[in-house]
Amino acid sequence: MNIFYLLILVSPAAERLRYILGEDDDPPNPTLFTEMDTLQHDGEEMEWKESARWIKFEEKVEEGGERWSKPHVSTLSLHSLFELRTCLQTGTVLLDLDGYSLPQIIDDVIEKQIEDGLLKPELREKISYVLLRKHRHQTKKPIHRSLADIGKSVSSNTNRSPVRSPATGASFHRSTEDLRMRQNSNYGRLRHAQSRSMNDITDTPSTDQLKNKFIKKIPKDAEASNVLVGEVDFLDKPFVAFVRLIQSTMLGGVTEVPVPTRFLFILLGPSGKAKSYNEIGRAIATLMVDDLFSDVAYKARDRDDLIAGIDEFLDEVIVLPPGEWDPNIRIEPPKKVPSADKRKSVFSLNEAGQMNGTAGGAAGGSGGGAGGGSGSDDGEMPAVHEIGEELVWTGRFCGGLYLDIKRKLPWFPSDFYEGFHIQSISTILFIYLGCITNAITFGGLLGDATDNYQGVMESFLGTAMAGSVFCFFAGQPLIILSSTGPILIFEKLLFDFSKGNSIDYMEFRLWIGLHSALQCLILVATDASFIIKYITRFTEEGFSTLISFIFIYDAIKKMIGAFKYYPINTDFKPDYVTMYKCECIAPDPVNTTLFNASAPLAPNNTNISVYNTINITALDWTQLSKKECLKYGGSLVGKSCKFVPDLALMSFILFFGTYSMTVTLKKFKFSRYFPTKVRAFIADFSIVFSILLFCGIDACFGLDTPKLHVPSIIKPTRLDRGWFVFPFGKNPWWIYLASALPALLVTILIFMDQQITAVIVNRKEHKLRKAAGYHLDLFWVGILMAVCSFMGLPWYVAATVISIAHIDSLKMETETSAPGEQPQFLGVREQRVTGIIVFVLTGISVFLAPILKYIPMPVLYGVFLYMGVASLNGIQFWDRCKLFLMPAKHQPDYVFLRHVPLRRIHLFTLVQIICLAILWILKSTVAAIIFPVMILALILVRKMLDLVFSQHDLAWIDNIIPEKEKKKEDDKKKKKKGNKGEDESEDEPRFPTPSVIKIPMEPIQSDPQNGIHCISSK
Amino acid sequence: MNIFYLLILVSPAAERLRYILGEDDDPPNPTLFTEMDTLQHDGEEMEWKESARWIKFEEKVEEGGERWSKPHVSTLSLHSLFELRTCLQTGTVLLDLDGYSLPQIIDDVIEKQIEDGLLKPELREKISYVLLRKHRHQTKKPIHRSLADIGKSVSSNTNRSPVRSPATGASFHRSTEDLRMRQNSNYGRLRHAQSRSMNDITDTPSTDQLKNKFIKKIPKDAEASNVLVGEVDFLDKPFVAFVRLIQSTMLGGVTEVPVPTRFLFILLGPSGKAKSYNEIGRAIATLMVDDLFSDVAYKARDRDDLIAGIDEFLDEVIVLPPGEWDPNIRIEPPKKVPSADKRKSVFSLNEAGQMNGTAGGAAGGSGGGAGGGSGSDDGEMPAVHEIGEELVWTGRFCGGLYLDIKRKLPWFPSDFYEGFHIQSISTILFIYLGCITNAITFGGLLGDATDNYQGVMESFLGTAMAGSVFCFFAGQPLIILSSTGPILIFEKLLFDFSKGNSIDYMEFRLWIGLHSALQCLILVATDASFIIKYITRFTEEGFSTLISFIFIYDAIKKMIGAFKYYPINTDFKPDYVTMYKCECIAPDPVNTTLFNASAPLAPNNTNISVYNTINITALDWTQLSKKECLKYGGSLVGKSCKFVPDLALMSFILFFGTYSMTVTLKKFKFSRYFPTKVRAFIADFSIVFSILLFCGIDACFGLDTPKLHVPSIIKPTRLDRGWFVFPFGKNPWWIYLASALPALLVTILIFMDQQITAVIVNRKEHKLRKAAGYHLDLFWVGILMAVCSFMGLPWYVAATVISIAHIDSLKMETETSAPGEQPQFLGVREQRVTGIIVFVLTGISVFLAPILKYIPMPVLYGVFLYMGVASLNGIQFWDRCKLFLMPAKHQPDYVFLRHVPLRRIHLFTLVQIICLAILWILKSTVAAIIFPVMILALILVRKMLDLVFSQHDLAWIDNIIPEKEKKKEDDKKKKKKGNKGEDESEDEPRFPTPSVIKIPMEPIQSDPQNGIHCISSK
Repeated sequence: MNIFYLLILVSPAAERLRYILGEDDDPPNPTLFTEMDTLQHDGEEMEWKESARWIKFEEKVEEGGERWSKPHVSTLSLHSLFELRTCLQTGTVLLDLDGYSLPQIIDDVIEKQIEDGLLKPELREKISYVLLRKHRHQTKKPIHRSLADIGKSVSSNTNRSPVRSPATGASFHRSTEDLRMRQNSNYGRLRHAQSRSMNDITDTPSTDQLKNKFIKKIPKDAEASNVLVGEVDFLDKPFVAFVRLIQSTMLGGVTEVPVPTRFLFILLGPSGKAKSYNEIGRAIATLMVDDLFSDVAYKARDRDDLIAGIDEFLDEVIVLPPGEWDPNIRIEPPKKVPSADKRKSVFSLNEAGQMNGTAGGAAGGSGGGAGGGSGSDDGEMPAVHEIGEELVWTGRFCGGLYLDIKRKLPWFPSDFYEGFHIQSISTILFIYLGCITNAITFGGLLGDATDNYQGVMESFLGTAMAGSVFCFFAGQPLIILSSTGPILIFEKLLFDFSKGNSIDYMEFRLWIGLHSALQCLILVATDASFIIKYITRFTEEGFSTLISFIFIYDAIKKMIGAFKYYPINTDFKPDYVTMYKCECIAPDPVNTTLFNASAPLAPNNTNISVYNTINITALDWTQLSKKECLKYGGSLVGKSCKFVPDLALMSFILFFGTYSMTVTLKKFKFSRYFPTKVRAFIADFSIVFSILLFCGIDACFGLDTPKLHVPSIIKPTRLDRGWFVFPFGKNPWWIYLASALPALLVTILIFMDQQITAVIVNRKEHKLRKAAGYHLDLFWVGILMAVCSFMGLPWYVAATVISIAHIDSLKMETETSAPGEQPQFLGVREQRVTGIIVFVLTGISVFLAPILKYIPMPVLYGVFLYMGVASLNGIQFWDRCKLFLMPAKHQPDYVFLRHVPLRRIHLFTLVQIICLAILWILKSTVAAIIFPVMILALILVRKMLDLVFSQHDLAWIDNIIPEKEKKKEDDKKKKKKGNKGEDESEDEPRFPTPSVIKIPMEPIQSDPQNGIHCISSK
Repeated sequence: MNIFYLLILVSPAAERLRYILGEDDDPPNPTLFTEMDTLQHDGEEMEWKESARWIKFEEKVEEGGERWSKPHVSTLSLHSLFELRTCLQTGTVLLDLDGYSLPQIIDDVIEKQIEDGLLKPELREKISYVLLRKHRHQTKKPIHRSLADIGKSVSSNTNRSPVRSPATGASFHRSTEDLRMRQNSNYGRLRHAQSRSMNDITDTPSTDQLKNKFIKKIPKDAEASNVLVGEVDFLDKPFVAFVRLIQSTMLGGVTEVPVPTRFLFILLGPSGKAKSYNEIGRAIATLMVDDLFSDVAYKARDRDDLIAGIDEFLDEVIVLPPGEWDPNIRIEPPKKVPSADKRKSVFSLNEAGQMNGTAGGAAGGSGGGAGGGSGSDDGEMPAVHEIGEELVWTGRFCGGLYLDIKRKLPWFPSDFYEGFHIQSISTILFIYLGCITNAITFGGLLGDATDNYQGVMESFLGTAMAGSVFCFFAGQPLIILSSTGPILIFEKLLFDFSKGNSIDYMEFRLWIGLHSALQCLILVATDASFIIKYITRFTEEGFSTLISFIFIYDAIKKMIGAFKYYPINTDFKPDYVTMYKCECIAPDPVNTTLFNASAPLAPNNTNISVYNTINITALDWTQLSKKECLKYGGSLVGKSCKFVPDLALMSFILFFGTYSMTVTLKKFKFSRYFPTKVRAFIADFSIVFSILLFCGIDACFGLDTPKLHVPSIIKPTRLDRGWFVFPFGKNPWWIYLASALPALLVTILIFMDQQITAVIVNRKEHKLRKAAGYHLDLFWVGILMAVCSFMGLPWYVAATVISIAHIDSLKMETETSAPGEQPQFLGVREQRVTGIIVFVLTGISVFLAPILKYIPMPVLYGVFLYMGVASLNGIQFWDRCKLFLMPAKHQPDYVFLRHVPLRRIHLFTLVQIICLAILWILKSTVAAIIFPVMILALILVRKMLDLVFSQHDLAWIDNIIPEKEKKKEDDKKKKKKGNKGEDESEDEPRFPTPSVIKIPMEPIQSDPQNGIHCISSK
């Protein structure tokens, strides 16, 4: 028999802890703020100086720098932990002391020590004197005030220099002796003084304490634990006390912030070991902020409970080998630490069963960060990619719609008041600019495609109307409606078809719209949206990558367009400026006359007479502009006619500048400059700043770059149409029925576009609290479609990229947290305000034209580019694409890389790339109209991948747990309940091992005189 | 009495180690490569599968990913270390076994176990069978080969899935039973087989082993240590063996690379505890790669020595509290780990004394990285800013020069053959472009200032001649000579003075040059350069920051100049292109004639007749270029005359593009894409790539941007001067003597410029091996000055920015190192080749004109900007400037911030900024000529700062240990020798604590049957 048999036994320490932590009915213990003060000898004076503090991580006072260090993980030495253990074994432990002031508490402690024979009675006053010295805290001095100190400090420099500061233990032999003599006489005097009057401690919080802004970082109900360590010359063995007060009490100036003290640890020892005492102090302070140990400290019944707490702590510590790590390196706090609940749950057995389910998911999720599970995490499964209850098929008429409304209604008021936040302003500006750029771009394209039956004006009004109605009533107000590419192509084909077959376009379109709206409503009524849940990450990401690429492609295409629209005269030689001109020459017949008359006037010009016969005689051809010249039939002659100087390059500078400025400012959030809030502000408003800056630059140059031109009067783009399309009269009756067929195509298109975007928006990683409303969304899209058809406005559907941008700009993170703790992503500011305002602004834009005309189009294309690139980030597919370019050893530590061989990942990515390439080609041809159907084909491709890839691999790359695997997991769980303890050490990191494997530690014998401390187990 | 008294005692473990490690005469032990294999049960088959490996850091096999993890610090649990300790206490320890093959070794081990009664004899064959199973290593499969496996692996998927893999310990109850039955029958069969023939191990290295590229990462003389852990079902207590072979032996396919094995650790245990065995295996593997423990393992005499090694290791481990760190996070290897020598030195007392001096410096230096000393590093002093022996005053005539030559001569051959390296090519291109840009810029400016007595041609020839001579003969060939600003201003003043007083400029200048050269030689002969050592970081950094700013300022000024030189027509409206023209109109008198004659011919033009009276009658004014038109007195009329389209914006794009492209490519070195070598190549050649790219873009556009125009024929810029200036005849005799006075100014100027740059170049952080040669440098500068004066070429002196760029581009880093180890900066490729080639190329440039003319000037200004910005990096002053913008808590962890209060740092920085501002203003005025004198004033300002700042603060910010402080340090050291042990725990991290403070650990009693393991101290 052997040690390994012992491992499945539960050690006495754990049993003890299980006993005291088991009854979990008590309210959770308050957070502990720990402050460590060390005794400083400043000449004859002694004082307690704050040297470190902990909320969760350690902040140290940099002696020389007179500043707080960055919060860091407390790296302890094993040695100091063992020493601390001995200290608690031999020192005084007073649990539930009834203390109301520091002097009284100290008296009680000293009394107890004398009682136990640990302290000679004659040292009582000396100890008391030392412990009641004033506490000096490390508080920030404003620069201007402290500059005045400089002169002073130079003279007192030798004292301040750490080389001679006795506090750090480096005392010159002679001066220490001097000091001792002086101090002794000091004590002598004190013996006669009243011990109550000699203390420097007051009971009320000082102004320094109250002014300390650090209090903001400490939770409201927090209690303090004070650690006092120091060396004195009159002791020959350490004075150790651990005190827990029955009621937390404000102990005057002991703590740097006015937080009541609950725990007190005192270690005074003989001179010469300051560093060692310091380390012990750090050890107890670190223990006190440990979630588990602080619980133990609150609930401990006696000294042995505390020792058991330390043993438990020791059992869980992580050890770094000395040769691979420099103890001087301060370790930055990790992104995520194991939750205290998980650690505690070990001690309440009834919770352990529940833990199994959630812990695995959490562990899997954490892998996306710096690193995921190591060691033997092979069994853990990735986070489940769930669609949620919204897409359950109810089987009742309008059942989904009813549930959506029922689900969303309670949130309706909060959807408004939660929108009033500073962050919303940036979002509104950002999304607004995206929307009007989109409206103008699509408006222009639609105008081209439909011979201005639908133009920029219709686009603006339609966007404003549809968008605001949707944001007000829909299930997911974070979705932004917009015209989309496939619809544009459909309209183009429809218009050409109508024209070719002499069908009235607007009426035909109205009927298609009505049929399509009806079909949408039927889909809503039958809960058809539930099929969306079969769309996996493969399809989702393929779709959104494609849309992102289209954005990027369009932005760059438009930029290149500028070089075609404003050709650069590359042959221009500055010296030959005299050679370049562009003259308007009157048309040929006139020209010949001109030759004779030597006059630039054309009295009888037949070409011009069509337009303007009155002024034609007075025409001064050289004074005509390019347009006019061409209008009147003149021809342009000269080397510079074809070229436009500067505008193309200026457009490029504006385009690229806006893009890179936005990227740079976004990154500024992670720089070191300026306070966090300023940086967050700059990053949040980065797009606004970039737009303003480059509009300003454009204005400075004053070049005639293409500007945003918004129509300024509300009237249809084409004069021969009104704001209402009458449904009957222009087309034969059978068209009204036949239009149901093209409407089906539109319905599929709308349905896919809308719902995939909705799935992306409602993704679990966005942590939305207010549920989604797929049916309600589709309901409103259908209604709006009918309305738009009647009004002759474009049709609207969810726009993926802008919706994602909307969500990204509304993300929330935790604000106040313990120093060093990473801000956690909390969720998205879900509300309807930003969306509504954006679309109302879009409507008002018609009146904002005088302001908007200062915005150059290239700047907006830059914003487009940014939107496209930004929405690529966070797409796992894109991350996987990048892996192609990275050698294996430089690849980031994605969880799926740990679990799926690289070649399979590459194969999966390759399939996706090929699918996208095919889609891209389709999109660029007339086949674009069956684009949504192709998305359905993607789902098929994905299904076929089931044959090539194992379910395990797909679970990691495609983030679903297929039924098969799930069942297995269930089987396993059931089994485990049956035979516990048999397969404990298997691939389940969910059931923390400590309850099973223990470092056996229980004092057998401890002889402080001899210095032995023996650690063993029963 | 109490534990603390024990602390100063040396524990038995340390005593043991001191004994075995003390005799340090042996050669150092080979590096250990450790591989851990775990036993895998794959159906009926068993095999050893590599699961992790260590050179210095741990690399783990990612089960699912079939790949190596990134190297990381091994985080162990304290528990596994204690278990390992018990294992070594109870298991078989065979030191100095004479093994030649794995089967024989295993036989010996089993024999020993049976002898000691630890193993039942009937298990012999089973154990032997298991231990001789085949070893499978994690080797990289090429993608193309492994894609073929995919079909296969899908079918065998359920086996591969970690959920069912028994190896990870997750065994289904039923299937485990099956397995056991089958295995049992297997063993049954084996009992009759020959044990020799049944093993899967061959003695010769396999092809897989030989093909493994990983061998490159392992030092040549390395030995392997193999860790084998696994669970088997036939054991009821663990089988543990630690074997050290007398001679390292190649054990066939056991190790993944053909490295001979020296150590073998075997742990086989009963089923169910695979995870725990794994952890123990990781613990021993981590120990084996620990520098200290591996020494112990090599030298251990018995089991207790090994245990002592573990105890020593435990004493040094760093402990992370469980609540503040997630054990699943893989910790990236640190930049720097404590050196093994330092740790070992504890055990050889005679070395401890020496250690004091160096360790402090090392610790201080490390602070610049991620973090410096924590805990109680307050006493450590910053690295000493030493100038080195080169600047010691010899007191002999030419003593310094003699020593310089003596010092540099042995390096002379290596200065050439060490230059032939791929890196040199990039350096040459980079510096060459910097040099010719400089030569052209200064040439142009000199031409302006001296009415072309010295022009671009002189600048080119002078640069080439002076530079190559200097690089060939000087003491510090890394210094690049160039014209500098102050000299330019001096020439300008001199020329104006000469002209105003009718003195012959060239002759006057020659005499000044000769006097100055003489004065330089006198300074050389008297070792006057030694005064440079009084220049502190304050002056040095002030100077180089100023020069950097001048570079940046000049680059931007030249760029802005382009906008003035090529004005943009901001009122241009594309539509009114017809309005813009520029016509050459004949001069007024002609113009009036024209009015009458209606002909553009000017028969009698008085203005033009001066130049050309022959063609004047035939002039077609409209066909004249701008220059010709103005030449012949015509006037330009039209809206577009003043403007040049596109060129300014194109210049800006080229300028800014070159700069940002270079910065981006430089950063590319730290990206994840492409293999390290490719990235290093791209980063090294970033400037060349940027220049090529933007030259290409410029060529594509074909715009007439300003290009680099190099004179293509060697002849003086001014026709009335030759290549030799005759010293006598043109000026009165007293001028020859009086010129000594202005020469003094030039001498100071040259001396300061040259030597400060030399100090910056020779800085300790550049780790130059071949010493500096201040006197020799100045000698050659003097000689070259005389030569240049005779030839009428500009004077040359060290150029700070280009010299720094030269050094930066020649930096070397370690190439092969253990995975995870950070490349270390090794030093600079010190040689004369790059410099000489650069200057030879500069000379040849005259013939390269046809190629060079494709380089647009804005691209070169971009390079200038980059040089200026890049040379700002690494200047501590600049870092301190940035601190102004950072809130205290976001500031990087600079060492000086830990030791000097922020307000003092800010004050110091502020003083520097003010000094620089004053210098900047001076530089911009005529007073620029006393610029070098102002640098001397900087030294004075710095001296005055001694009154404001404490020596301690200055030591940190200004990096010097002043005499006062130094003496104190010495005092302290002396004192320490006197009374040891008294002030051990003071502020001295240099004397490693382990020898003083010990975790007392010595086995009192260990009863494996009972499972107690007791750890205590004497």
